[in-house]
Amino acid sequence: MTAPPALRHRILGIDPGSRNTGFGVIDSDGRHSRCVASGCIRVGQFGWPQRLELIFDRVAALVAEHQPHELAVEQLIFARDPTAALKLGQARGAILCAGLKGGLNVHEYSAKSVKLAVVGTGGADKVQVQHMVKILLSLSALPGEDEADALAIALCHAHSMGIPARKRAAASWRDFRP
Amino acid sequence: MTAPPALRHRILGIDPGSRNTGFGVIDSDGRHSRCVASGCIRVGQFGWPQRLELIFDRVAALVAEHQPHELAVEQLIFARDPTAALKLGQARGAILCAGLKGGLNVHEYSAKSVKLAVVGTGGADKVQVQHMVKILLSLSALPGEDEADALAIALCHAHSMGIPARKRAAASWRDFRP
Repeated sequence: MTAPPALRHRILGIDPGSRNTGFGVIDSDGRHSRCVASGCIRVGQFGWPQRLELIFDRVAALVAEHQPHELAVEQLIFARDPTAALKLGQARGAILCAGLKGGLNVHEYSAKSVKLAVVGTGGADKVQVQHMVKILLSLSALPGEDEADALAIALCHAHSMGIPARKRAAASWRDFRP
Repeated sequence: MTAPPALRHRILGIDPGSRNTGFGVIDSDGRHSRCVASGCIRVGQFGWPQRLELIFDRVAALVAEHQPHELAVEQLIFARDPTAALKLGQARGAILCAGLKGGLNVHEYSAKSVKLAVVGTGGADKVQVQHMVKILLSLSALPGEDEADALAIALCHAHSMGIPARKRAAASWRDFRP
């Protein structure tokens, strides 16, 4: 699928999880966006470290298939237990490696920034995010929770391209690469 | 470097860290081992997620250069803060992905199993591990802490090959792959 000239930026948004990893690919010009693909990578039935290889392979396949320009992921400021953090960290490591090896710039956004960008309030709940993603991308059905979160992250990054750089919530490390 | 026929197993041991990742490559027959290469991947001066790409690339390069048969890593049962666990998890995800994409079997050992295998007591300190690794591998100088830990993990896996399978401390997920 080729984006029309107006929607020249293709963004892969990912909501990392050690069991379910939501993904969403959108085309955007910073103001108007269209959904190209979305879904959920489910690896809960597999053991470790096989999950990591599956996540890495699936993200690499998404990059190869959709050729996004950038990867946007949720910035994790983790408050739960260390064991869950370790598992989530491993999944996140696999996702980021697949994106980086695919040559993508990586942008990170806090959950609050994502909700603020999509719903208008940093305290929005998951159902509000699902509904706003459906409206903003003119989807025919309500997306799943993980799918909606991933599309919301992609939309958050798309919106950040439409406003002056000084107001952007994320920094790309490639901008400062030595 | 080609191993003599007696030391037919080449093992890559890795001690994961978000700043310093120790590595050690050994040839072993399960009882006698020889050090092929060892060192430390230092990425503390780089930001995230660049570190992940550097760790992934360095581990992939080690796999390509030394062609190990197996990867042995420390099993993390983490008790410290979630933020540190998340960072370490990401680094571990990058390491495991690089190993798995290189076609290696992955084996995990607890820190206690490693110390028990190398020093003879699960409560051994880092200096004891460094000294025992030096003796067991006939090294000319004391290895660095991270390097010694990685070589100890490789030795632990080598030793597990020399005893009956039922006594082994680790399980390889590839043995049970669907």
